[in-house]
Amino acid sequence: MISQLQKARSAYQPKVPAAIEGATKLAEGKATQSVADQEDIKKLFPNTYGMPIVTFEKATGETKTEAFNVGIILSGGQAPGGHNVISGIFDGIKKLNKDSKLYGFLGGPSGLVDHKYIELTSEIVDEYRNTGGFDIIGSGRTKLEEVEQFDKGLEICKKLNIKAIIIIGGDDSNTNACVLAEYYLAKNTGVQVIGCPKTIDGDLKNEMIETSFGFDTATKVYSEVIGNIERDANSAKKYWHFIKLMGRSASHVTLECALQTQPNVTLIGEEVEAKNQSLDDVVTYIAEAVAARAAKGLNFGTVLVPEGLIEFIPAIKKLIAELNDMLAANQAEFDTVAADKKIDYVVSKLSKENAELFKSLPTTVSTQLALERDPHGNVQVSLIETEQLLAEMVAKKLAAWKKEGKFVGKFATQHHFFGYEGRCAAPSNFDADYCYSLGRVAALLIASGKTGYMSSVRNTTKPAAEWLAGGIPITAMMNMEKRNGKMKPVIQKALVKLDGGPFKFFASKRAEWAIETAFVYPGPIQYFGPTEVCDQPTKTLVLEH
Amino acid sequence: MISQLQKARSAYQPKVPAAIEGATKLAEGKATQSVADQEDIKKLFPNTYGMPIVTFEKATGETKTEAFNVGIILSGGQAPGGHNVISGIFDGIKKLNKDSKLYGFLGGPSGLVDHKYIELTSEIVDEYRNTGGFDIIGSGRTKLEEVEQFDKGLEICKKLNIKAIIIIGGDDSNTNACVLAEYYLAKNTGVQVIGCPKTIDGDLKNEMIETSFGFDTATKVYSEVIGNIERDANSAKKYWHFIKLMGRSASHVTLECALQTQPNVTLIGEEVEAKNQSLDDVVTYIAEAVAARAAKGLNFGTVLVPEGLIEFIPAIKKLIAELNDMLAANQAEFDTVAADKKIDYVVSKLSKENAELFKSLPTTVSTQLALERDPHGNVQVSLIETEQLLAEMVAKKLAAWKKEGKFVGKFATQHHFFGYEGRCAAPSNFDADYCYSLGRVAALLIASGKTGYMSSVRNTTKPAAEWLAGGIPITAMMNMEKRNGKMKPVIQKALVKLDGGPFKFFASKRAEWAIETAFVYPGPIQYFGPTEVCDQPTKTLVLEH
Repeated sequence: MISQLQKARSAYQPKVPAAIEGATKLAEGKATQSVADQEDIKKLFPNTYGMPIVTFEKATGETKTEAFNVGIILSGGQAPGGHNVISGIFDGIKKLNKDSKLYGFLGGPSGLVDHKYIELTSEIVDEYRNTGGFDIIGSGRTKLEEVEQFDKGLEICKKLNIKAIIIIGGDDSNTNACVLAEYYLAKNTGVQVIGCPKTIDGDLKNEMIETSFGFDTATKVYSEVIGNIERDANSAKKYWHFIKLMGRSASHVTLECALQTQPNVTLIGEEVEAKNQSLDDVVTYIAEAVAARAAKGLNFGTVLVPEGLIEFIPAIKKLIAELNDMLAANQAEFDTVAADKKIDYVVSKLSKENAELFKSLPTTVSTQLALERDPHGNVQVSLIETEQLLAEMVAKKLAAWKKEGKFVGKFATQHHFFGYEGRCAAPSNFDADYCYSLGRVAALLIASGKTGYMSSVRNTTKPAAEWLAGGIPITAMMNMEKRNGKMKPVIQKALVKLDGGPFKFFASKRAEWAIETAFVYPGPIQYFGPTEVCDQPTKTLVLEH
Repeated sequence: MISQLQKARSAYQPKVPAAIEGATKLAEGKATQSVADQEDIKKLFPNTYGMPIVTFEKATGETKTEAFNVGIILSGGQAPGGHNVISGIFDGIKKLNKDSKLYGFLGGPSGLVDHKYIELTSEIVDEYRNTGGFDIIGSGRTKLEEVEQFDKGLEICKKLNIKAIIIIGGDDSNTNACVLAEYYLAKNTGVQVIGCPKTIDGDLKNEMIETSFGFDTATKVYSEVIGNIERDANSAKKYWHFIKLMGRSASHVTLECALQTQPNVTLIGEEVEAKNQSLDDVVTYIAEAVAARAAKGLNFGTVLVPEGLIEFIPAIKKLIAELNDMLAANQAEFDTVAADKKIDYVVSKLSKENAELFKSLPTTVSTQLALERDPHGNVQVSLIETEQLLAEMVAKKLAAWKKEGKFVGKFATQHHFFGYEGRCAAPSNFDADYCYSLGRVAALLIASGKTGYMSSVRNTTKPAAEWLAGGIPITAMMNMEKRNGKMKPVIQKALVKLDGGPFKFFASKRAEWAIETAFVYPGPIQYFGPTEVCDQPTKTLVLEH
């Protein structure tokens, strides 16, 4: 059984750039360079380095090719629109030749290595048009990094006569797509590899990739429920709501939701790190907003917190590093310590500075840090319920201020975490169009014989007809970074830029938003209404372009 | 600043029953009886007992009256559509006479008592049409129960020349509205009191009140995010999501969301109580579904849990009662017990049966029950994170079953709680129309000189034009119940009926939903699309009528 909305949406025909509606021709730009470490990257990618940016332009007549087969892989966490990338690829290769075939590797990259796949027929693809989720073939987190994996993949490509693999993933998956492209090209296998930029985190973007797909829909779902909570706060007038949002390594999601909903306090990890703020600095900043509103009789508000906040605080980063080292060095002794003495033991072994910080944490957090470790023996930062931690510490500070007469109000809290609510939402019109276009462009890149390219659709703040379609060499986005102690070529992750348009706009407004009740209630994603309601890109995108 | 959707929605003109579009005449039915305890209720409400159900019918010409003033009160928790009740009342009284005035008492019933109010002009009302929240005048939880409050209210009514008060609230607030109506009538004050059925919990309904407003929108918001989580579960295939939903005294919200989204496991408090299930029965039931799916290779799923589940389990109810009594009797001694010995102390003082149950609870829960008490010294059941408690206990059971070979899978969990996300959402078309109609009908009831009535709009599974408009004597919904040790006249709370249409349909499907992946993804509320997407009532309403 499918819902009425899903039924109605299945008829939606996503918009594509006018340039690729009919026949196309390829325009090649000039040679590219990697964003940094050019010599190293060039050495590692001798065959796929320096290729030109390419653009598809309108041509006359009809573009037809030989039939060819394509294999696709969904890699990593879900993002709204993945199914539309697939339907775009399907329609794209069928337009070029109706006998072309699409194979889907099951359960992520491991499907390629283990030869688990299905043919994606029109019956299957039609069922998933404009739907959320990655359930059409499933996703997975296996990393394609080893030559044995590449060779196993080649076997199945040869068997199925696959001309190209398309990897739909985030920065790491696209890095690996390029490594695979280079390997297959160096070995002259004839198998091309194309990447597609996916992640709700919004941290796969650069000069040429304006946004990763899924970011638009996910942030709109989060903004809907944040807006609803804000309206509740403003009606009940008795709670401060602490809301944590997905995004461990970058705060784009939190920033976009702040631009959409204008909460009282928004923490941006990149700023906390750049300003070398301590946990106490962060707590004081929130408490000041609470106290300022309380002075106006407003004992309610909203605070947005990015999931990765804790790891952005330099002092906490140091504490965690010392904890990991200390526990590894003293594991045997630590195991013999009685449960109720473990915290004291940890304190006794830490440097003075870190011991002080550790003691200042609420006991739920210090206990969790001391006692729970992941399979590699590391403390599990991701388990810290940051939104609760902050609420507790703010409460403590306000209680102290109350005694000093610096705070004259009430402080009651609720907390929320939004992540899974948005990753598999049905794509917004923007993501439905953008993803479908990315898929259509990927098909054209394959037909043009390209490999090591990422499918690219630009000019996305304009109506879809004006979008620009093309491909960007993945090596052009790379630099060298240390991973597990070794220098590796990777796509540079896009963090929130403190001198970028979105952050600067936010920074110019936040003092007002902190004290006033300037909430905005975006409401649910609409598909059928006026274009200013249904077809807006994110505020981040608009402020960046 | 308002969002684009809010701007577009402000132009929406809610639909009303055809019968009240133009002139109306009043048709009186036969005398009513209270649902039970007729003698007692009649004695307590000599002036408002036994009145007839009334219906508004189309008349010719134009209905005009003298100008009159109305005061409104929003009482208790927010529910989507409250602002539309107000705009309906506003338009209703202005249609009858353009010089009529609407006053809003601020911050709930206390506004009436403390004489805090504003005049609701067209500028103010227009700003709030079709929006969520109660922020237009705020809400509050003060109970109108004392004669002093009634007399203070009368003062301001006389001062503002208010002909009638409309109380928008749940079962308790409407009970109090009737007590107030009776008092004002007995004292011949000339001030009428009308109630409106509000609560997202859905537990204010009966033969004549088909649904309380807000239930439609709130359950659709929850179903949207539950559906998104289900799609994520079905894509990632690695988590069981435990989702708690608002609703402490009834499980209508959970049942409706289950009907919308078809999760694997749904717990209904009323059934747990009726079957006298233990916590272990509930845990076993969930674990069996997990094990059955694991046997098919499906290590993921969704479980819906009503907020009040714990209090529906008879054994837990007994444990809590004994804990409250025991702690009250031994408070002084308990306070002297060392923190790490308090649990042992509690166990030593409980009856054998309850001590066993107490010891079987995860330590987080037993600690919370033993150590945290509300201002009245009672254990705080509402603080128990039921979704986490169940996830932990299911994990424990599955670990035991794994050893016995009864479970052959993985069990990893995520948990969520949805409540504040839905209470202040912008009303669905249904709630926008239903609430506006309730307001228009309330205005007509006042003009007809009625008091002690609840505004009623029926036949709501049909298009709005066919809805029936009228009023139901509040006493007809009452019975006597024990509250704080005393028998009180109250509106009978509507629990989930195990022999009702919605539960029976659910019960006929749940075995299949448990094992198959039969998820349905409703998606976000739509306002502008095809009517089968935008204008559907809840499944509960359809299955009941």
